[in-house]
Amino acid sequence: MTNDIKKEIISLAGPDLSLVEQALEANLTPNLDLVRQVAGHLLFAGGKRLRPLLMIHAARMCGFQTGQEIEFSTIFEYLHAATLLHDDVVDGSDKRRGKPCAHTLWDAPTVVLTGDFLLATALVIAARTKSPRVIEVIAQITADMSQGEIFQMEKKGNPDLTEDEYNEIIERKTAVLIQGACRTGAIVAKADQNEEIALKNYGWHLGMAFQMADDLLDYTATADQLGKNPGADMREGKLTLPLIYSLGKAGTQDREWMLAAMARPQFEPAEFQDLKERLMRLGGIEYTNNRARVHVQSARTALDIFPESPSKHLLELIADYAILRKV
Amino acid sequence: MTNDIKKEIISLAGPDLSLVEQALEANLTPNLDLVRQVAGHLLFAGGKRLRPLLMIHAARMCGFQTGQEIEFSTIFEYLHAATLLHDDVVDGSDKRRGKPCAHTLWDAPTVVLTGDFLLATALVIAARTKSPRVIEVIAQITADMSQGEIFQMEKKGNPDLTEDEYNEIIERKTAVLIQGACRTGAIVAKADQNEEIALKNYGWHLGMAFQMADDLLDYTATADQLGKNPGADMREGKLTLPLIYSLGKAGTQDREWMLAAMARPQFEPAEFQDLKERLMRLGGIEYTNNRARVHVQSARTALDIFPESPSKHLLELIADYAILRKV
Repeated sequence: MTNDIKKEIISLAGPDLSLVEQALEANLTPNLDLVRQVAGHLLFAGGKRLRPLLMIHAARMCGFQTGQEIEFSTIFEYLHAATLLHDDVVDGSDKRRGKPCAHTLWDAPTVVLTGDFLLATALVIAARTKSPRVIEVIAQITADMSQGEIFQMEKKGNPDLTEDEYNEIIERKTAVLIQGACRTGAIVAKADQNEEIALKNYGWHLGMAFQMADDLLDYTATADQLGKNPGADMREGKLTLPLIYSLGKAGTQDREWMLAAMARPQFEPAEFQDLKERLMRLGGIEYTNNRARVHVQSARTALDIFPESPSKHLLELIADYAILRKV
Repeated sequence: MTNDIKKEIISLAGPDLSLVEQALEANLTPNLDLVRQVAGHLLFAGGKRLRPLLMIHAARMCGFQTGQEIEFSTIFEYLHAATLLHDDVVDGSDKRRGKPCAHTLWDAPTVVLTGDFLLATALVIAARTKSPRVIEVIAQITADMSQGEIFQMEKKGNPDLTEDEYNEIIERKTAVLIQGACRTGAIVAKADQNEEIALKNYGWHLGMAFQMADDLLDYTATADQLGKNPGADMREGKLTLPLIYSLGKAGTQDREWMLAAMARPQFEPAEFQDLKERLMRLGGIEYTNNRARVHVQSARTALDIFPESPSKHLLELIADYAILRKV
């Protein structure tokens, strides 16, 4: 079933995706080769282009189909890439999308400044929408995301992170950008207020589901599927919902075992397997799955006000895929 | 004479400056205390507010005086602070404005992300201008500045930096932002094209003069005046015009002495005095002074198309002050 959905998404979105790739290439115009290399390393490493796709089809669902939606949609891939570059420096991760992180190949300052350049590129295109509201949305996204990352850093390694705090972190680090892409689709289409709110809600729930699925995959997927070793969040001291929930349900023995595991810089495969079994047994995996499923359902429901259309169908498929995907 | 100009600027600009301070406080609204601390550390460390002042009076000279020019002007102080935070991480400097740099008090990721937050704050206010052209200008500034810093990093420690390359670096790292502040004043005032071009030219020449004066002060001012040790540029491997020109005029002996000095991580006071004397003797100080003076003259000339007004007078005084100041 997962494969069927993926196939259908690719067949519906394929032509747009090639146009998005072209637009991403065409609008990336640094003066310096080094900036092109660093930016290109991440930008053209096989991203799913989820955010551009969402903006394009949100706009079309609201009746905007001038062709400009392709160019405008790249705003959200550049923004995404900019934040990934800054985050990789912050996290000190080694791999992303199966490739070494930029900051392991170039020094941190170069990576930070290339992130700034990508943010600037997003703004250049945002200015072309001639819509102050689009700028407002993007400014708010940037403010939220930077503060979300700092909040996550402050909470690193804290075993008492609550589910509410976790929700606040993933809202800022993932949901606001996905929400912003959907909302911007409505704004450029000059959609009415109800439509904009509906797309805002769709985007928020989708973003929450998406990050929860990501956090699950960090425990359940293989290194091959992830393009990096699983368990990275825990090694970096980031508590995510499967662990937060399980810690809450754990007895003393399980709790102490898990806290000790968190303190270890590395896992043996057998230990990691042991951890996964505990998360299953204590219900953290299932609870996270359920929460993600509720968000997907809410995302779909938010679209009810729109009449059927190919774009609506695609947005629904993407919501389903958010939690069925293996990578 | 320097003191007279300074007094006149302060008496003309004083009331606006207090309003700018209030607006900077009022618009800085992070959710996190940590962000407020890191941002405030730099933002309220006694900056001159040159860029807001330029925007305010550029706008007024073009007939815009709604009071909104105060709020809009903060865009350029937030942007300036954002780039200073990212640059301090890049440069690894210890002090700025007489205080320890943020990255010596907080870790680099926090400083980078607070920079992102300040950039976002600038954008939030830029969106309030409802002018896509303002956003375009700001996007281009951000793109130029990030690339300028990378270019400077690439050239670090290279004794063959040319005057053209130096001009390119200071244009990007300083002049484009000062130019952008002046130009934005014209844009929000809906000035005609000639006025906007005049302010663009004024800002560019002023920015170039300003950075050249800064680069001179790094050799000629005292630690007390600078709020950091002089000679910092050279210790960081940054060649500036006084040294570039002097190296070009130097015989083998002077050249070798200067190259050896560049390679030393630290100076004894006597060595630094010796270096300054060489820069005087070889003409680097005088040449840089002359170049800066020509830029100030061009900045003033650019304003010729405007009739006399208090704002024009202030912009002229600021141009004079750019090269007379001691800090």
